[in-house]
Amino acid sequence: MDVGVWLVGARGSVATTVITGAAALRAGLAAPIGCVTESPDFTGAGLPSLDRLVFGGHDIASTPLPKRAEELTRAGVIPPPLADLVRHELEAADAEVRPGVAPTPGTWPVPPSTTGATLGTGIGEVAGVEAETQAAMARRLIRDLNGFRERRGLERVIVIHVASTEPPAVPHPAHQDLEALTGAMELPGEVLPPSSLYAFAALSAGCPYVDFTPSTGVSLPALDQLARARGVPYAGRDAKTGETLVKTALAPMFAARALAVRSWSGTNLLGGGDGATLADPAAGESKRISKDRALPGILGHSVEGRTHIDHVPHLGDWKTAWDHITFEGFLGVRMSLQFTWQGCDSALAAPLVLDLVRLLARAHERGHHGAVRELGFFFKDPIALDEHRLQTQYDLLRTWAASLS
Amino acid sequence: MDVGVWLVGARGSVATTVITGAAALRAGLAAPIGCVTESPDFTGAGLPSLDRLVFGGHDIASTPLPKRAEELTRAGVIPPPLADLVRHELEAADAEVRPGVAPTPGTWPVPPSTTGATLGTGIGEVAGVEAETQAAMARRLIRDLNGFRERRGLERVIVIHVASTEPPAVPHPAHQDLEALTGAMELPGEVLPPSSLYAFAALSAGCPYVDFTPSTGVSLPALDQLARARGVPYAGRDAKTGETLVKTALAPMFAARALAVRSWSGTNLLGGGDGATLADPAAGESKRISKDRALPGILGHSVEGRTHIDHVPHLGDWKTAWDHITFEGFLGVRMSLQFTWQGCDSALAAPLVLDLVRLLARAHERGHHGAVRELGFFFKDPIALDEHRLQTQYDLLRTWAASLS
Amino acid sequence: MDVGVWLVGARGSVATTVITGAAALRAGLAAPIGCVTESPDFTGAGLPSLDRLVFGGHDIASTPLPKRAEELTRAGVIPPPLADLVRHELEAADAEVRPGVAPTPGTWPVPPSTTGATLGTGIGEVAGVEAETQAAMARRLIRDLNGFRERRGLERVIVIHVASTEPPAVPHPAHQDLEALTGAMELPGEVLPPSSLYAFAALSAGCPYVDFTPSTGVSLPALDQLARARGVPYAGRDAKTGETLVKTALAPMFAARALAVRSWSGTNLLGGGDGATLADPAAGESKRISKDRALPGILGHSVEGRTHIDHVPHLGDWKTAWDHITFEGFLGVRMSLQFTWQGCDSALAAPLVLDLVRLLARAHERGHHGAVRELGFFFKDPIALDEHRLQTQYDLLRTWAASLS
Amino acid sequence: MDVGVWLVGARGSVATTVITGAAALRAGLAAPIGCVTESPDFTGAGLPSLDRLVFGGHDIASTPLPKRAEELTRAGVIPPPLADLVRHELEAADAEVRPGVAPTPGTWPVPPSTTGATLGTGIGEVAGVEAETQAAMARRLIRDLNGFRERRGLERVIVIHVASTEPPAVPHPAHQDLEALTGAMELPGEVLPPSSLYAFAALSAGCPYVDFTPSTGVSLPALDQLARARGVPYAGRDAKTGETLVKTALAPMFAARALAVRSWSGTNLLGGGDGATLADPAAGESKRISKDRALPGILGHSVEGRTHIDHVPHLGDWKTAWDHITFEGFLGVRMSLQFTWQGCDSALAAPLVLDLVRLLARAHERGHHGAVRELGFFFKDPIALDEHRLQTQYDLLRTWAASLS
Repeated sequence: MDVGVWLVGARGSVATTVITGAAALRAGLAAPIGCVTESPDFTGAGLPSLDRLVFGGHDIASTPLPKRAEELTRAGVIPPPLADLVRHELEAADAEVRPGVAPTPGTWPVPPSTTGATLGTGIGEVAGVEAETQAAMARRLIRDLNGFRERRGLERVIVIHVASTEPPAVPHPAHQDLEALTGAMELPGEVLPPSSLYAFAALSAGCPYVDFTPSTGVSLPALDQLARARGVPYAGRDAKTGETLVKTALAPMFAARALAVRSWSGTNLLGGGDGATLADPAAGESKRISKDRALPGILGHSVEGRTHIDHVPHLGDWKTAWDHITFEGFLGVRMSLQFTWQGCDSALAAPLVLDLVRLLARAHERGHHGAVRELGFFFKDPIALDEHRLQTQYDLLRTWAASLS
Repeated sequence: MDVGVWLVGARGSVATTVITGAAALRAGLAAPIGCVTESPDFTGAGLPSLDRLVFGGHDIASTPLPKRAEELTRAGVIPPPLADLVRHELEAADAEVRPGVAPTPGTWPVPPSTTGATLGTGIGEVAGVEAETQAAMARRLIRDLNGFRERRGLERVIVIHVASTEPPAVPHPAHQDLEALTGAMELPGEVLPPSSLYAFAALSAGCPYVDFTPSTGVSLPALDQLARARGVPYAGRDAKTGETLVKTALAPMFAARALAVRSWSGTNLLGGGDGATLADPAAGESKRISKDRALPGILGHSVEGRTHIDHVPHLGDWKTAWDHITFEGFLGVRMSLQFTWQGCDSALAAPLVLDLVRLLARAHERGHHGAVRELGFFFKDPIALDEHRLQTQYDLLRTWAASLS
Repeated sequence: MDVGVWLVGARGSVATTVITGAAALRAGLAAPIGCVTESPDFTGAGLPSLDRLVFGGHDIASTPLPKRAEELTRAGVIPPPLADLVRHELEAADAEVRPGVAPTPGTWPVPPSTTGATLGTGIGEVAGVEAETQAAMARRLIRDLNGFRERRGLERVIVIHVASTEPPAVPHPAHQDLEALTGAMELPGEVLPPSSLYAFAALSAGCPYVDFTPSTGVSLPALDQLARARGVPYAGRDAKTGETLVKTALAPMFAARALAVRSWSGTNLLGGGDGATLADPAAGESKRISKDRALPGILGHSVEGRTHIDHVPHLGDWKTAWDHITFEGFLGVRMSLQFTWQGCDSALAAPLVLDLVRLLARAHERGHHGAVRELGFFFKDPIALDEHRLQTQYDLLRTWAASLS
Repeated sequence: MDVGVWLVGARGSVATTVITGAAALRAGLAAPIGCVTESPDFTGAGLPSLDRLVFGGHDIASTPLPKRAEELTRAGVIPPPLADLVRHELEAADAEVRPGVAPTPGTWPVPPSTTGATLGTGIGEVAGVEAETQAAMARRLIRDLNGFRERRGLERVIVIHVASTEPPAVPHPAHQDLEALTGAMELPGEVLPPSSLYAFAALSAGCPYVDFTPSTGVSLPALDQLARARGVPYAGRDAKTGETLVKTALAPMFAARALAVRSWSGTNLLGGGDGATLADPAAGESKRISKDRALPGILGHSVEGRTHIDHVPHLGDWKTAWDHITFEGFLGVRMSLQFTWQGCDSALAAPLVLDLVRLLARAHERGHHGAVRELGFFFKDPIALDEHRLQTQYDLLRTWAASLS
């Protein structure tokens, strides 16, 4: 039986690259570069093969997937003939996209609109119509998930949130307790940010869930209770695809060598939709918090230096990160290391989506539930895991995957 | 009882920094930054404490250690008042320096002379005098080592080679077999390069031995036989202090993420004596071979790109490395990472000398002999270890150290 | 006759380096590296020689110059034996330092205190004492200047402001007109920021004046009127010593080659007192405004990208700037240039202080008054000059200097 | 009347980009980014407009221009739909490509074959056939040029050499004197390298000539005599498109500020055909000589540091240059600047080809002959010009262009 992949933000750049790439891999048109789970370390883990994945999702954007794939071809993210060659698969996935939900204006800060990666407006936004409760919205989302599973005859459906980053959530007492939460959702008003509403719906429908962005999503105690109650595994958050990836590879070097890191300054230049979203101070704050967890975790102390996130539209789908590190060596001698990372965001993210879906599908099959800390390797701010060293995270992942066989 | 540290190249920059630093640490004048074995992971390993170390060594250079320390103070390697404060210890170590040996001119290529880091001329160089055999030279070196041990009442003496890099050794059949080697050494002519002669003497005297440079040193089958026969441990080679250190921290990131590294180009700018030596094509070749082993080992395939080593005298004791890496991600999208490392060579090397001496002393005490592969963490080209990933090497070291307790 | 150099911020890092360096040059202990006016292009300009310069100044800091020079020696700004060798000259200059003035708390935003570079508290700050008017303060400053000139028998005195950067000045109608200004200064309250009060005093005393920082200083219409009325030349503002220097060398390259610069992002990491001051958003704003003028001036259009100024105390007296530029070439192909500048702020600034003093002294001698636009080569935000291209500014300076002969 | 542009290496990457781009500009499909002569400074110079240019050339490669343009589209040099839109113009130019000449194997070192940018084999290479003399080859080339001019009714034809870099030429006495040269060319054997044979033919046919590469080309005394005798202007050599461009913008900054540059190290990573050619030590030597002229010319003294040119095929048509500069400031304080340039070689070169053709056509029209030093702005190693500062070169060019009106 096939496995469903339900992308929240299904017409965004990441989702479009995922669907195009999965089709290309299936057709033998591309090598699985960047796919961790295609390496020999995962051969025996019993993961669903790529040709068993079926795509659908939520989005508000109306630009269909084949057109989005053309845009990404012009932007240099998808190599020239590919979008044409897999047009059929893109159309099939696009037929499985349903309208998403969005915050009632004024309740949750709305991130600036970005091409194809925004969340849908719910009925709540329609002027003059009585606002839908979040419970009603959740029921609608659950119906979408169940419909997908039944219509396509799927063994299970994995939901993964790849939409724009939200600002940090406003705390609410009902976030701490599942019963309080379900009660509060029946009342008018918004108790959950959209990302958490999607997570609520996914878990309620028995679907494993992944927070691919720094948005609040599943990381509320009430939702952890829900996941455990429903026997569903989840993972997150904020995929580690650039500056933080390099940071968590380099910082352990200083730690292992007992070199005293004194400052670590970073500047991130982002074009495209993600840059526009994160240039918003509130959304950027979510990202910065997420990015800043790794260093003290690895070095055992805090260091001087700030992390900037700038929007530079001319960079398009590319991002550049410059990090400057000063450290002391023997007898206090001052030295430095700097690096510049130039990457394509969607190309870095897409294979990790496929990896996470496959691993979480297998974990679900094997009866895991609650937070899967062993997937921390993929995230800037891993849920339920204090380990930030990349290689150690990989060893943890590899060992766990072997246990799934 | 105290432990002897016998430095081959005892008046070079690295040795001077080691001796100054060890005295400063003992006196509480400096924190043990860069000392791996001072981290909590090694607390229970039973290593000899720093105040049990007594220094001596071989060198030809006549500039005494206190004067060398002043030079390094002006160069910014040793912080201003320190050399004065530990002058007594520098004088004591200088009193234990004995003349070294050097290749007969024309037999082994002689590296360009560098301040205080050259190997001594043996009797063989004296014109008109009949050449000393290498066996005779070795006996002289052994007497120096035994004299040091007895005179200072040492539990054991660790020999560590920190002199200038030699060109790759000319192969000789006697390198393969200990008996053939000892026979050949009794004849006129040179069968061993100087670094290997020092290793031969150290092992013969029952002293653990470390190859801190890429010179041939102990890495000959005949010397491995000798070490096993004498029950002595050894380790090497070529301490990992800069570009390669960063390489072995970063390359596993690409491997773990299944990103396809296509090229890795590096330019190393070195001032000082090391730069002058390595600017010599033959000596530079030893270094390049040593530096180039790590990447294919970690990535599983070779990549495009060259490694340059340039001598830039104005850099003084500092070195700068620029590495440029291109890689492919999902669907073949091309991306890049570059880094610039700016470090002080002697300050990076010195604490590792202390670490290696302490670890090898303890290994000797616990009865280890032959190549200690678990010390590969410290080396560019680890003897008897195929693992180049820095974090994995550290885990190996940590586990092994715990077993010494 | 000798020429006086009156440094506002006389015990700061820049002033200490200036005084130490001038003494070292006079004594033949150092070469005039970084001194533009020592190049052959200025031989015939009739500039006062360095051994005719006599130093004094205003400051509130009480750490005497010899001690400040020791601190800068430990920090690597002044080479080891120099501060001792010129101790006599440092003491002589220190004897000519008088208490400065500072804003009444709560009136002008006070920058965070920085070692030795802060402006003095005026009587106005003493609790319970009736506040001194700014006119009275100015009279006191003028007396200090006249006293210096007479006591030391000086031909003329050049005043140069090298104290910490102030926030942008609060506009005041009296800034537009000299008569209104002198009237307003007789009333209680503060009409001028401290930097402008110093400029007012200097011009009133007939002293040429230089704004070396981005503070308001002389750049008010009323002060321009004063300079013209008193026949005094002045120049400014914000010495170009690092990132902007490189910018104004590189941006003309893109312009001359008709390459379309699309973004220019910059991150400045500053340690020391200057970093602490500029980390204050208000003071940093002055700097950013000053830094951001050059690019549109040279390129003819604005570009994407921001300039960050971060305080990284561990950098000490050093600063690092990373700039990332994206541009389009033929047929819209996207390319990039990035640079990293690592400089010592005081060492970059000090020789320019000597240059400006010598040039302005000669301009005064030759009867120039008002803003000297030809000195724009030295400044980020040149007064009365729209030309930002470094080489063109240099040609302008060189031609003008030749006309002084 | 139209102006002919005869490209030696007419099917190489540069030529293909030139022809595609010129057609795109004429059709309004692209903006003239990178075209210096389209800036307002050149409006009144009377240059031939872009729509008067007609293209042809010599090459041995048989891949037709439309196909080469497709390859460059896939490589990201030409934006996607352009090659299709100007296919007609590419075909028209391709119809004007004639077979070139190449060195007799074994006489001149042959650079490694590169796609579409190699020089043609002459009859001399055909086995078993008596070798054509260079005089005969030249006559054939001259016939090609005359045929192009007559067939297309051109006012004049400009020849520009954009083929692969040759090794430095073997000196020959006949290079010094035109009469000796013409005599020697009638004998069997090769007296001129191919690039100089093309220059000989161009000048003989009365065509202005440009050396766009570091090959010997027109820079022989005998050819200068020929140009003067025929009243033809010429210019060269080695277009300044990357590292050296930035160098000549930055080095004057250090000179104007009297900062003492101590070392300048550079590493150039080149993919594509140019990289393969220059990886050949002999051809690379031509390039390095050419690149190394600028610095001593600007700084007035030589500096430490080497320039490397590495072939990294994975970079494709892109090149990356990293330069590391150390310099001293006031009191000898050591500082550094480094930059990384990432550019597309053909996109940087192509607009300069159009500029040079237009300027040289106008110079010819106005009666200039011999070396045109005012075009030095475009070259790494400008013929007849000692000035390397970019801005000063631009001022020279601008002033001269104004005089053409």
